[in-house]
Amino acid sequence: MPRTRSAQPSPAGPAGPIGPVRPGADARCALRPATAAVDGGFWHTRREVNARTSIPQGPGLLESAGNLHNLRLAAGTAEGAFQGAYPFMDTDVYKWLEAAAWQLARDPSAEFAADVERIVSLVAAAQQPDGYLNTWYQLVKGGERYQDLRWGHELYCAGHLIQAAVAHHRATGRSELLDVARKFADHIDSVFGPPGSGRPIDGIDGHPEVETALVELYRETGERRYLDLAGYFVDRHGHGLLGGEAYCQDRVPVREATNVEGHAVRQLYLLAAVTDLATETGEPELRSAAERLWHAMSTTKTHLTGGLGAHHEWEDFGDPYELPNERAYCETCAAIASVQWSWRMALLTGGARYSDLIERTLFNGFLAGVSLDGERWLYVNPLQVRDGHTDHGGDQSARRTRWFRCACCPPNAMRLLASLEHYLASGDDEGLQIHQYVTGRYTCGPIGVRAETDYPWHGTIALTVEDTPDDRPWTLSLRIPQWCREFRVRCGESTYDQTDAPVDEGWLRIARTWAPGETVVLELGLEPRLTAGDPRVDAVRGCAAIERGPLVYCLEEADHPGGGLDDLVLDPTRPLAVKHRPDLLGGVTTVVAAGRRRDIPDAGWWPYRPAAGDASATAGEPVELTAIPYYAWANRQDGAMRVWLPTS
Amino acid sequence: MPRTRSAQPSPAGPAGPIGPVRPGADARCALRPATAAVDGGFWHTRREVNARTSIPQGPGLLESAGNLHNLRLAAGTAEGAFQGAYPFMDTDVYKWLEAAAWQLARDPSAEFAADVERIVSLVAAAQQPDGYLNTWYQLVKGGERYQDLRWGHELYCAGHLIQAAVAHHRATGRSELLDVARKFADHIDSVFGPPGSGRPIDGIDGHPEVETALVELYRETGERRYLDLAGYFVDRHGHGLLGGEAYCQDRVPVREATNVEGHAVRQLYLLAAVTDLATETGEPELRSAAERLWHAMSTTKTHLTGGLGAHHEWEDFGDPYELPNERAYCETCAAIASVQWSWRMALLTGGARYSDLIERTLFNGFLAGVSLDGERWLYVNPLQVRDGHTDHGGDQSARRTRWFRCACCPPNAMRLLASLEHYLASGDDEGLQIHQYVTGRYTCGPIGVRAETDYPWHGTIALTVEDTPDDRPWTLSLRIPQWCREFRVRCGESTYDQTDAPVDEGWLRIARTWAPGETVVLELGLEPRLTAGDPRVDAVRGCAAIERGPLVYCLEEADHPGGGLDDLVLDPTRPLAVKHRPDLLGGVTTVVAAGRRRDIPDAGWWPYRPAAGDASATAGEPVELTAIPYYAWANRQDGAMRVWLPTS
Repeated sequence: MPRTRSAQPSPAGPAGPIGPVRPGADARCALRPATAAVDGGFWHTRREVNARTSIPQGPGLLESAGNLHNLRLAAGTAEGAFQGAYPFMDTDVYKWLEAAAWQLARDPSAEFAADVERIVSLVAAAQQPDGYLNTWYQLVKGGERYQDLRWGHELYCAGHLIQAAVAHHRATGRSELLDVARKFADHIDSVFGPPGSGRPIDGIDGHPEVETALVELYRETGERRYLDLAGYFVDRHGHGLLGGEAYCQDRVPVREATNVEGHAVRQLYLLAAVTDLATETGEPELRSAAERLWHAMSTTKTHLTGGLGAHHEWEDFGDPYELPNERAYCETCAAIASVQWSWRMALLTGGARYSDLIERTLFNGFLAGVSLDGERWLYVNPLQVRDGHTDHGGDQSARRTRWFRCACCPPNAMRLLASLEHYLASGDDEGLQIHQYVTGRYTCGPIGVRAETDYPWHGTIALTVEDTPDDRPWTLSLRIPQWCREFRVRCGESTYDQTDAPVDEGWLRIARTWAPGETVVLELGLEPRLTAGDPRVDAVRGCAAIERGPLVYCLEEADHPGGGLDDLVLDPTRPLAVKHRPDLLGGVTTVVAAGRRRDIPDAGWWPYRPAAGDASATAGEPVELTAIPYYAWANRQDGAMRVWLPTS
Repeated sequence: MPRTRSAQPSPAGPAGPIGPVRPGADARCALRPATAAVDGGFWHTRREVNARTSIPQGPGLLESAGNLHNLRLAAGTAEGAFQGAYPFMDTDVYKWLEAAAWQLARDPSAEFAADVERIVSLVAAAQQPDGYLNTWYQLVKGGERYQDLRWGHELYCAGHLIQAAVAHHRATGRSELLDVARKFADHIDSVFGPPGSGRPIDGIDGHPEVETALVELYRETGERRYLDLAGYFVDRHGHGLLGGEAYCQDRVPVREATNVEGHAVRQLYLLAAVTDLATETGEPELRSAAERLWHAMSTTKTHLTGGLGAHHEWEDFGDPYELPNERAYCETCAAIASVQWSWRMALLTGGARYSDLIERTLFNGFLAGVSLDGERWLYVNPLQVRDGHTDHGGDQSARRTRWFRCACCPPNAMRLLASLEHYLASGDDEGLQIHQYVTGRYTCGPIGVRAETDYPWHGTIALTVEDTPDDRPWTLSLRIPQWCREFRVRCGESTYDQTDAPVDEGWLRIARTWAPGETVVLELGLEPRLTAGDPRVDAVRGCAAIERGPLVYCLEEADHPGGGLDDLVLDPTRPLAVKHRPDLLGGVTTVVAAGRRRDIPDAGWWPYRPAAGDASATAGEPVELTAIPYYAWANRQDGAMRVWLPTS
């Protein structure tokens, strides 16, 4: 495997997307966000592509899609017609700004630094004197505001503006964009409020996002008004202000909800805010709602890849255990939102499971959305593409696309990759918790730990304590992934494995007084494995999926010439073999399995037959099956793909 | 089982929806449509509900939905705004008129006879002087015509008008509506044509329908122009006139297509026209396209119920073998269109398989669309509804609805039920072919055969020759259904069964000189059976469906109190028992199977587990499973339902 490491490790970054909880009597948070400087290995490579290709191409793409033109129109510095078909065209700009800001924090001299300031100025110039800002409404709707909260996305756009502004401020120390965001937030605060508040509109946005953004603005500015406004918006969901539809989380108040529902991204952004509020206010009802809904989601509505959202139509969650493969929606944005929410849950509760799901999502359901070259994207992330598949093309195609008409996913993926170091580690009064394993340096106050690993290709993570408070014991907590059946840890003279290690609900805790240079070596067993679904997941009955470490694998037509991927059957009784393939797809470890090409007798004109005595089940010539990591699919020619393989 | 029979058998009806092929050197048709007077038994009951409830309620529903108001607006006899959201609002009226006309043919004194003439006058009054007629374009679009052929539905509306007019003419002998239709058809013929034809527009409609209607208008009037226009429209599909989209069958010319694709109803109406044209013109390329596409559809894209269309989004066919259960679209209109197309194929080729699919579709995928009381409808017909299912409501809900915003299905179902006797039998120079078994009288020229049966509850069909040409031998052909494994036939002194009967590709042929009063008794074995899917149908892997005769069965929550339908497992090794239940759902035969309620251990927060050693597969308490005919589901309280049952 390629083992890259940049020459100059980045400095520990500033605060990430989640700022420190505001001190206060009510705030409750198990863990504090820490950070990691990723400077080698798997994620470093993906982030370099993001920094060198995806983000730099952003301004050109935003120019040709018309987003920047729209801002210039609103600022009065250009002429022509509004471009694009959506009222949320501005968010592509905001998300790109956020991505660029996180990258600038590490590399202030990045080639796109001037683009950032130019575009920040554009945004500022487009803002109306009273703080309102949305080019669609300013230009297309004749200035009409807040008339269509269900579909209008005005507060959704404000939310992304706020997040970009907070990032820009944290990353660069500059306040131009934060000033714009605060002015808009103040305007919103003057317009929206409960009956009797003196505000003219008692309403919420059909697409949650402003809620979590407002909490972050509170964290950044200390203005309690923003937190209260977020709380108001969250709790007004579920009271029929938007027609009572599950689609926009208006069917039931979140405090009473029993499962996630409706448009997946909307649900997840809303729940990020619920967790933010539970954190800042300590409200037990909000916390228990968040825990209950996360559990219901992970148990009944999550694809093996971490992907979320079962339906193309309405982009929404299906029923419990309704987890289709080929028509999985699993929007890239939903995977991103899931990471954002789960990380907030991890910090709030300290639970390792949240980072288990983050790991699974990052390596699979999220990363599949970005091509290896960083230039093409998937909006939806199915778990199966049939032989001879045809689709409508367009945004929801199962083929990678350069940009989308609704381009929400690409800049969203850019911002997650650019801020990834903030989702990897945390700290508390006891010490440092490592949630995700990367090559780089984890920093938490006076504690600094260096990590070297070729994870996920190899299971060894070598940790060296570089900085430690003198003579004060602290605990190094290492997440033992939920998928891991065997591991070994060597720490000084001691060696533990899964039978005797001090693992506490997913956390291996090593408490001692550390000296600089001391090492801990964790070896996670990466034997490839076959996974089955809960029997209620009808879509995967009689199938197994190949996994190795945190990676979900799939078969792709390119590795099985002759076509007919749908006729391949896995033999679950034969061992799986691992093959490192530095030549393939940027360097991947493949898993080779034994199987056969099913022999299906001609059934005449009707594909259903008596259940007993079907001879086709065992016949067929043997075939070697080569599985690649799911995240790397759709990077060669178009063709069939499948994650879940029939076993009989 | 209730065995009903009306006191006064209806007379043999006039020509049905498919008129006699025009005599000509090129025409090719294996069979001629014959008719049957249905006067008792299963379908008589369903048709009585249609005649006494569904059709009579039509005018009131068309009034409250605004369809009739729109016609009055267009005629200048009312004031107000256009009602309804679609450019094809008029077709609800046309389809209702067609349904009412077929019913009037049997019962001229039906209570809605005056409604028919009133509404025919309304339609005539709304027509513009040059023949154009579409209230949406006349009223909403300021008279703008043919500017949006892709979505406009103008020719689609014309098609339904023509079909209604032909029905009205054939059923009542009156020509008011036929005059309207001809005038519109003449107008269309003056506007549309290939380059160089002198017509201003070279174009086709995004929703096929006018093509098959024009062939029927040709049959009714003898005007060859209408046939040529139909041929032109059919062959201009697939040349990019509508953007080249599969959705509206514009990706590939039908002569080159290899599978059905795009919007299911559109595809099927187009293929009905292809078969019509192959019949009238004898063109071998059109015939082979129709045969090829029917085979591809039945083999790879048909649900067990005969339902067609895999996707909610775009209402379209999926990939081959992509046949989901819970997200099956299976629009009621697609089932109707499938029957219409398959019947044309049966007449063209003489193949029994087409009537096999018709039978399956009628008893399952179609009939489920109509409630037992004839007052509520399903637009989509899924094969599974999960425990605790929630949906968006609206037209595509899995719950029955009184009427739809897009009300295409209810009047479409009414017209099929009202004209059903025309899809049951055919004749040729050799004699009479009985395609579907009903209680009533089959008539074909001088041949008349009386049938008595309680099919599909019992398998005995008693046939008596009532009329026969003197001293001339002819062949009685009886379709032996594709699902049938055992049968016996007694004819005079002879008795055959499946081992020695003269069955010729699905047809049991009995040739002799018949005397009035002679009987044939066919006994079809109705042992309930378990059915499996082709291994490529991923959605049904590891499952079996219960069938009996032509009926597909399902489990419904109402028969399995305590909920948890998704946790029930069928034991395929135990025998199935039949229970006649005159008390249940209007009288049905249920099938009782042995099963168990699966024991699923708590999986923690993640629903996927190691593939080996899953103990849940065999545990669980025994449960008696009661299966009801699929067509009767959703007639009690809302709840879960499933056709395909896990077997392990």
